Amino acid sequence: MPALIIDGRAAREAYMPALQARIKALIAPPTLAIIQVGDRPDSTAFIKAKSAFAVKVGAKTRHIHLSEDASQADVIKSVQECNASHDIHGIIVQLPLPITIDQDAVIEAIDPRKDADGLTALNVKHWLEGREDAIMPATARGVKELLEHYKLSLFGKHVVVVGRSMLVGKPLAALALNENATVTICHSRTADLAQETKKADVLIVAAGRPALIGPGHVHEGAVVIDVGINDAKREKLEEEIPGRKLVGDVDFAAVLPALGDAGAITPVPGGVGPMTVLGLIENLVDLCARV
Amino acid sequence: MPALIIDGRAAREAYMPALQARIKALIAPPTLAIIQVGDRPDSTAFIKAKSAFAVKVGAKTRHIHLSEDASQADVIKSVQECNASHDIHGIIVQLPLPITIDQDAVIEAIDPRKDADGLTALNVKHWLEGREDAIMPATARGVKELLEHYKLSLFGKHVVVVGRSMLVGKPLAALALNENATVTICHSRTADLAQETKKADVLIVAAGRPALIGPGHVHEGAVVIDVGINDAKREKLEEEIPGRKLVGDVDFAAVLPALGDAGAITPVPGGVGPMTVLGLIENLVDLCARV
Repeated sequence: MPALIIDGRAAREAYMPALQARIKALIAPPTLAIIQVGDRPDSTAFIKAKSAFAVKVGAKTRHIHLSEDASQADVIKSVQECNASHDIHGIIVQLPLPITIDQDAVIEAIDPRKDADGLTALNVKHWLEGREDAIMPATARGVKELLEHYKLSLFGKHVVVVGRSMLVGKPLAALALNENATVTICHSRTADLAQETKKADVLIVAAGRPALIGPGHVHEGAVVIDVGINDAKREKLEEEIPGRKLVGDVDFAAVLPALGDAGAITPVPGGVGPMTVLGLIENLVDLCARV
Repeated sequence: MPALIIDGRAAREAYMPALQARIKALIAPPTLAIIQVGDRPDSTAFIKAKSAFAVKVGAKTRHIHLSEDASQADVIKSVQECNASHDIHGIIVQLPLPITIDQDAVIEAIDPRKDADGLTALNVKHWLEGREDAIMPATARGVKELLEHYKLSLFGKHVVVVGRSMLVGKPLAALALNENATVTICHSRTADLAQETKKADVLIVAAGRPALIGPGHVHEGAVVIDVGINDAKREKLEEEIPGRKLVGDVDFAAVLPALGDAGAITPVPGGVGPMTVLGLIENLVDLCARV
């Protein structure tokens, strides 16, 4: 028997009824403001995917679209208007911002009580501490719930995370640590990547490099979570785009047989991607429910 | 030849002239407010040690001593007065606080620009990001400078951190990651501690358990940094107390010969402890120089 293929779309479907019920129980539909600066086609596609899923579960999005030449003050003003609005419960700033804008200053302008991406300092501290009420970045939350859906516990396991970004690698490492895993964090400067990743009971890859992980990087029986999203031109994307041809950081076809029948692996697309959008809307609903 | 014994007192002496010169160049002596609630003898001893070192290098401390029954509002009011004072450049709240007080609320009341312990959310985010201007908790800074003094680079090394506290374990892991080490974080739930620690090129132990690390936990040639401070009654302390009989988390006498002549190890006391006090006053001077 081959390894289990973890189905993120099916897992998301399974989480949806509970999410829809929570949303219905709220007084007003939870509303996510999505602030976009400029017209990057990828960003537009991500926003479309988020909005479509939000609508599907009964939430709302408000797309606030500023032009490419908006100043930092303009963007922060938009954030502050969302902070002040009683009709908006969560805010995300679609990244990356134009390079002329200080991303950190814009993120910190978000009221932590409306920080649906879990990127403001107060939320970062809370998820690093492992607080139950912390808002985690959506990808980390999505991975957590994907593992829970498949009853794959991290407790006492050796988890290896490849990648150390603030958006993905570090929150995933914090998550695993808070679930009582022993955690190793690898990255582009790791001397012998295969030697490290082969020790993983659970291998989480978020490097943004197609086919970084091959059959020689895993041990039989491992669980492999591929967070990488790269398009056919082998460029790293931040999120999945429906209909686009995508590959992960793991050479899926080659790694699958190496895992044996006790192993498990997420495909790209259809693994972590759908769960990330779910995680975002769950964050929104948590924030809305706290008001 | 036995392993190198890393001398934290000598390293601190070596850093002192530069620190004293920086302090002399400032308009006013950098002043650290130390807020203590209650009369824990350990806390009083720690404060005395910090003040003595501050005076030695030309800095000042102001000991703000509240009674055991001070309310949370009283403590926060003291913090706010320090925030507002132009004569105070850094603030630390001596931990632990009485259990009736929400430690997190008190810490977050500190102006991040005066946060000499690097524990406010904004500083936590900055050291997790690896920003050059981040104020790190003093122990992590002390360990960093101790390694630098001995020209022990973490670049590309496998660093194993035992312990995952917000004050010590997590900042040390972030530090090692930011220095391009591959980092494994172990803790009380790690299934086979020796198996993990034996892989360490650099082993940093901050668990608060005397003799946790024996000769079977290290490989020949490893660098062992013992951050644990436990008194003769085997109780975990937060800091070194001069004159008190202390032991670390590492069974020094047994581990030293196992490291061979290429290895290195810090003693307790006289290893990381003196560097922690140095790191605190360096943080203070950084904050003062930014005003």
